[in-house]
Amino acid sequence: MTAQHQTATTPKVDIDGDRLWASLMRLAEIGAFTDAATGLTGVNRQSLTDEDADGRRLLVQWMREAGLEVSVDRMGNVFGRREGTRPELAPVMIGSHIDSVPTASAFDGCLGVLGGLEIVRSLEQRGVATARSLVIAAFSEEEGVRFGTDMLGSAVAAGRLSLEHAYRLRDADGCTFGDELERIGFKGQPSELLEPVHAYLECHIEQGPTLLRDDLPIGVVTGVQAISWQRITLHGRAAHAGATPTDLRVDAGLAAAQIVVKVRDMVDSGSYGCLRGTVGRIVTEPGMPSVVPDRAELTVDLRNPDSAHMAAAESELADFLRDLPSQQPCEGLVVETERMARTEPVPFDARLQRAIADAAANRGYPTGRLMSGAGHDAQEIVAIAPAAMVFVRGQFDGISHNPREYSTQEDCAAGTQVLADVALELAAEGEHA
Amino acid sequence: MTAQHQTATTPKVDIDGDRLWASLMRLAEIGAFTDAATGLTGVNRQSLTDEDADGRRLLVQWMREAGLEVSVDRMGNVFGRREGTRPELAPVMIGSHIDSVPTASAFDGCLGVLGGLEIVRSLEQRGVATARSLVIAAFSEEEGVRFGTDMLGSAVAAGRLSLEHAYRLRDADGCTFGDELERIGFKGQPSELLEPVHAYLECHIEQGPTLLRDDLPIGVVTGVQAISWQRITLHGRAAHAGATPTDLRVDAGLAAAQIVVKVRDMVDSGSYGCLRGTVGRIVTEPGMPSVVPDRAELTVDLRNPDSAHMAAAESELADFLRDLPSQQPCEGLVVETERMARTEPVPFDARLQRAIADAAANRGYPTGRLMSGAGHDAQEIVAIAPAAMVFVRGQFDGISHNPREYSTQEDCAAGTQVLADVALELAAEGEHA
Repeated sequence: MTAQHQTATTPKVDIDGDRLWASLMRLAEIGAFTDAATGLTGVNRQSLTDEDADGRRLLVQWMREAGLEVSVDRMGNVFGRREGTRPELAPVMIGSHIDSVPTASAFDGCLGVLGGLEIVRSLEQRGVATARSLVIAAFSEEEGVRFGTDMLGSAVAAGRLSLEHAYRLRDADGCTFGDELERIGFKGQPSELLEPVHAYLECHIEQGPTLLRDDLPIGVVTGVQAISWQRITLHGRAAHAGATPTDLRVDAGLAAAQIVVKVRDMVDSGSYGCLRGTVGRIVTEPGMPSVVPDRAELTVDLRNPDSAHMAAAESELADFLRDLPSQQPCEGLVVETERMARTEPVPFDARLQRAIADAAANRGYPTGRLMSGAGHDAQEIVAIAPAAMVFVRGQFDGISHNPREYSTQEDCAAGTQVLADVALELAAEGEHA
Repeated sequence: MTAQHQTATTPKVDIDGDRLWASLMRLAEIGAFTDAATGLTGVNRQSLTDEDADGRRLLVQWMREAGLEVSVDRMGNVFGRREGTRPELAPVMIGSHIDSVPTASAFDGCLGVLGGLEIVRSLEQRGVATARSLVIAAFSEEEGVRFGTDMLGSAVAAGRLSLEHAYRLRDADGCTFGDELERIGFKGQPSELLEPVHAYLECHIEQGPTLLRDDLPIGVVTGVQAISWQRITLHGRAAHAGATPTDLRVDAGLAAAQIVVKVRDMVDSGSYGCLRGTVGRIVTEPGMPSVVPDRAELTVDLRNPDSAHMAAAESELADFLRDLPSQQPCEGLVVETERMARTEPVPFDARLQRAIADAAANRGYPTGRLMSGAGHDAQEIVAIAPAAMVFVRGQFDGISHNPREYSTQEDCAAGTQVLADVALELAAEGEHA
């Protein structure tokens, strides 16, 4: 039996865009803050904080109300399962995350999880059974902003990182992931390793301007670009700002600034394809106006859809860092680098990409194919199951990780509808085998 | 009666270099820490902390043991008075400060205060009376690292800043100077405005390499260079590091880095005389690897012995900041500047400079004349009394604001001896009037 054959016989279920929107807005109340600069309401619901715990509890409540059987694994990943008529078959999983960066909005991650919830709510409402079970997943610490490693929950679920490694990761205050997970009451019993799944689907706001610019509501995601995160620590020498001549300075802050400027120069050079480079964190110590910094820390985030271009950019930066001490007016600068994350470009499953494009076409939604600029849980699940993603158009230049991040109710509903149609097709696969 | 005449008749008193050294080392135990990078012991005794309070209590105890009458004014400035035989005459004041930067050593500030204490201990021991009273002063928050304004205690004592202004200054945790002063029990009764003083003398470690390089134990300080401190806050736009193209970024962290590099370029250009430029503090928000910073804060410390060169450098930096938004790939950068401190070059009293040079020559110490790279309480007292400073040679390139800051016992004793000889001369002035 082929997927093509199934497609013809699979029932279509219309999701409820109003209900989806209401859930998105309700969840966004947890961790809400008013952005001082713009007056906009943002969301700060970082992983394993009290706000995250509140968000998780609301999600679990909603899952139970939708008839799902809820489980929480040892990584705190939350699963809501709707049993199929053939429960012995591997389930179809729809997932994403509900943790946020400190400057988020209602959409990032939440749309994928609440979209999955909306699908099972609609199925329940209409009494539609599926052959394969459906599992809605919310993975822990996808953003990586608190414990320093993004896609952490899904990376452990897919077996790339170990539970012990994850538990030992610390936040800026020295709290470990393991302790914080226990503190918020989401350290579950079941193994952190995912049972086999038939397919994994994730719907997400684009977080970029492409779909908006091309006037397309829906994107078929071809994969995720390579990501390289490193933390660079510079050790200089504290000295008096007024009395120390330049030629006796080992200024860790200046060296940090030179790296920031270098990263942008590399992007602007065009030598590394579609390289993106960001220094999100810079901090100097002791951080006093009158003291030349003896320590600076910064993070460098490089992204590239092309593996060779990424390697070349990393190599250029490493060369720059190696030469940085000898470029200072005085000996003594020490450059330490620590790899925080590194992934190769991840292609999504070709058959699932076609299914997404077909489902969107059947609903009359114009689509484009694009690579993801951001990392997503789907790229981890690729290691153990066919996976793919649906993007929905973002507004305001596709700005993301910002309170202005926004997608219209119509586009959120469209993306979730495509997700529903593909999930139903996949859930029917093997029904009569 | 002239100073020249007095010089001839003034008794000389030898100070006790061992006792001075022991006091320096004892005070340095308060707030001591081990520097992780070097294993050296440093001192962190920031203004109005518990450590500062402990240091103040030890100083008060020592002052009382030396027979001084101790008073604490409303700014927390501590004074120890040794009454002269002509108490109606304005006293000679010897002062400095005992608060420290977070990465200090035993010398900065403490040498001036404990040197003054050593002088009165020696006078007491030998039963030497002076005509004018001697006052040993320890001024509050000279470093400015906690409440953001350096020379705060002496600036208020000299009437340049108001008590109310000082009380309202806040530290990084939002605590006010006034509340913290009360908390540590050093909010005194007497007016914060200094009574007239005949002359003010301050001995300090050079905090620079000049005396070491020129093989001179003692420096006669001609004045203090102009100081300009500003806080620059950059407002950009948070955005996703992976998905946001460069031409849609308003990166506050990159703009901060461009300023840091510009400040060093201005110094290296040689266009602004002996300009020194330091960015001691850089911090970005939200400070996450995957988020383009929407806010960055930095401090710029400029120093210049020449008023016109300083004004030109400030003007160049202001132009750069004005043009910075239009140099970004995308509109929206907002640059805010806040003046933290600004002083013109301050010349010290010529007669006192000569007295210091003569006293050193009489003791056989080679001297050089130099301008101070750092700010000192003496530059505030200049507004209300003749003031001057003695520098002692620092070791290790004259490094300062660092645990490696060091002056030998011999050089500390030499500087304090010169201070003693000049103070005794000045204290005899007007004796027979």
